[in-house]
Amino acid sequence: MTRGTGPARDRDRADVVTMAHGAGGKASQALVQSVFARAFANPALDAMGDAALVDVPAGRLAFSTDSFVVSPLDFPGGCLGDLAVNGTVNDLAACGATPLALSAGFIVEEGFPRSELEHQARAMAQAAARAGVAVVTGDTKVVQRGRGDGCYVNTSGIGLVSPSALAISPAAARPGDRVLVSGPIGDHGTAVMLARGELGLEADVVSDTAALADLVQALLGAVGGAVHCLRDPTRGGVASVLNEIAASSGTAVVVNERDVPVRDGVRGVCELLGLDPLYVACEGRMLAFVSPGAAGAALEAMRAHPMGAGAADIGYVTADPAGMVLAESGFGGPRVLDMLVGDPLPRIC
Amino acid sequence: MTRGTGPARDRDRADVVTMAHGAGGKASQALVQSVFARAFANPALDAMGDAALVDVPAGRLAFSTDSFVVSPLDFPGGCLGDLAVNGTVNDLAACGATPLALSAGFIVEEGFPRSELEHQARAMAQAAARAGVAVVTGDTKVVQRGRGDGCYVNTSGIGLVSPSALAISPAAARPGDRVLVSGPIGDHGTAVMLARGELGLEADVVSDTAALADLVQALLGAVGGAVHCLRDPTRGGVASVLNEIAASSGTAVVVNERDVPVRDGVRGVCELLGLDPLYVACEGRMLAFVSPGAAGAALEAMRAHPMGAGAADIGYVTADPAGMVLAESGFGGPRVLDMLVGDPLPRIC
Repeated sequence: MTRGTGPARDRDRADVVTMAHGAGGKASQALVQSVFARAFANPALDAMGDAALVDVPAGRLAFSTDSFVVSPLDFPGGCLGDLAVNGTVNDLAACGATPLALSAGFIVEEGFPRSELEHQARAMAQAAARAGVAVVTGDTKVVQRGRGDGCYVNTSGIGLVSPSALAISPAAARPGDRVLVSGPIGDHGTAVMLARGELGLEADVVSDTAALADLVQALLGAVGGAVHCLRDPTRGGVASVLNEIAASSGTAVVVNERDVPVRDGVRGVCELLGLDPLYVACEGRMLAFVSPGAAGAALEAMRAHPMGAGAADIGYVTADPAGMVLAESGFGGPRVLDMLVGDPLPRIC
Repeated sequence: MTRGTGPARDRDRADVVTMAHGAGGKASQALVQSVFARAFANPALDAMGDAALVDVPAGRLAFSTDSFVVSPLDFPGGCLGDLAVNGTVNDLAACGATPLALSAGFIVEEGFPRSELEHQARAMAQAAARAGVAVVTGDTKVVQRGRGDGCYVNTSGIGLVSPSALAISPAAARPGDRVLVSGPIGDHGTAVMLARGELGLEADVVSDTAALADLVQALLGAVGGAVHCLRDPTRGGVASVLNEIAASSGTAVVVNERDVPVRDGVRGVCELLGLDPLYVACEGRMLAFVSPGAAGAALEAMRAHPMGAGAADIGYVTADPAGMVLAESGFGGPRVLDMLVGDPLPRIC
């Protein structure tokens, strides 16, 4: 099939991303200026150097990276652009850091609509504004049709670790700690799965994608050094993250299943599909391990924050069996919550 | 077609990357531990937090990101892994920064051989060691067959800007400055193009991929504040980068074509293909704009460094015509070197 030339084809080319947009020449520069520079405008980015310049005080930086390959690109409650900002902000927040700056690296498939790219960039800019951070540096690559899937985004971020968070680490969980979660679990994974439309299911489930750095600062402000460990339960869900922490700290974690907040819509979909919500990704929830004496105040501080209104105490840390996670349902003995095996929910972030 | 089960299939699954490796559970953790943690081992990475922790002095940080989608993954003189490290180190170097830490975000296509992933990770680790920096944090995503092209890598990096480089910027080029290049141009783009084997050409051309942070520090040590602008001419080549600098600084750049170092192999291939080496990417060259009184000492300092042995003075900055780049060949009038239009060499980095 041959394509025509002239105005119709020119319009096509202007409306979609082409290989020339990735070549580093005129078209690249025009795309960067008209889409990204416009969406993200800030002094560090506007300088358009090979890197952005960020002045920092002496201290400990958190530095994190995440690529986002979610499919579909839009889902109830959010989109690729939201996730890409919130995901990296939350990785910094899990170190007790306040984000200083983000980068954005796009891998765009030839033919991707320019309007879609603008939409995702705007969503990123809005999410960044909500999180109080700017996208200061970026990169765009274009790959041929069939070598990508519309648009992938990598974000990296740097943040300044709060003095009261310097000892926070997955290895620092200790027997007696209470395990808190900032809200209902499994919303994001369930929302994306439903948005694919392959299951013939409908339910009123909305992704929880949100930035949690401010919630973490509120928590640290309330109970400071009593927070031993923070982690956002994304891929693999709460169960996988608790396993990583149990292994890192050489402790056991016991989850009281009846205390784990799960929305009805999420519970219903998971039951139909034979999934356990404890393995379904969140994108706006934080797990906090807090010394028992401070757990009440910590829960109160989380619940007083808009991002932690649904916070709950879901379990505790004990010495044995070291490295394992157990779930107690209140009847029968505890069951072992192993790490996720296989991939029931591909490409949810 | 159905697939068998049992030992043969298990071996297949162990030898290639599967969707489960991207799910955040057991398989993900095993892949990260056996491939990436082994290749990149360092204390910041080994902590396996959501982000790496890096202690920094008060000062100005450079922060940069780049995704690498080069095809093929291996080419004479280097591979995806080398490029991914050197490219980001050089973006930091172009700000006069010494790299402090790198991140690595992999987007792997289902079915990609594990041995290939190990090879690229090892190449990254070796390139990072040569550049004196560590990969301290990372991320792995897996996409379905036909949604990627083997392996894409994003690297981001942070570096500390030298006090003598605080004023370096594409906007800081000024009339009178000499334009220096650290070695022969066009090697990388030509090597990758030949490695695709689509042109039926053979030539002894090897990529120049290399980290230049140490060369830049040597240059700054020799002539300090006399360096006004630095830039590594990757996509779009020397001509496109000079256009960006001319536009940023509101000056004109004049290139003496006979002084531009180009290897015979590169010149020959470019002549056959109708390409101008001034538009072909380098991955181990730096352009430096230096005040005229310090240009001799700057050239000497570059030539004394192993990465700058082939350095040359290729032109100068003048006031008019502002925003333009001109090439003088010595016969006839100057020709305008515009930015690259279109994409003669897709996916060279």
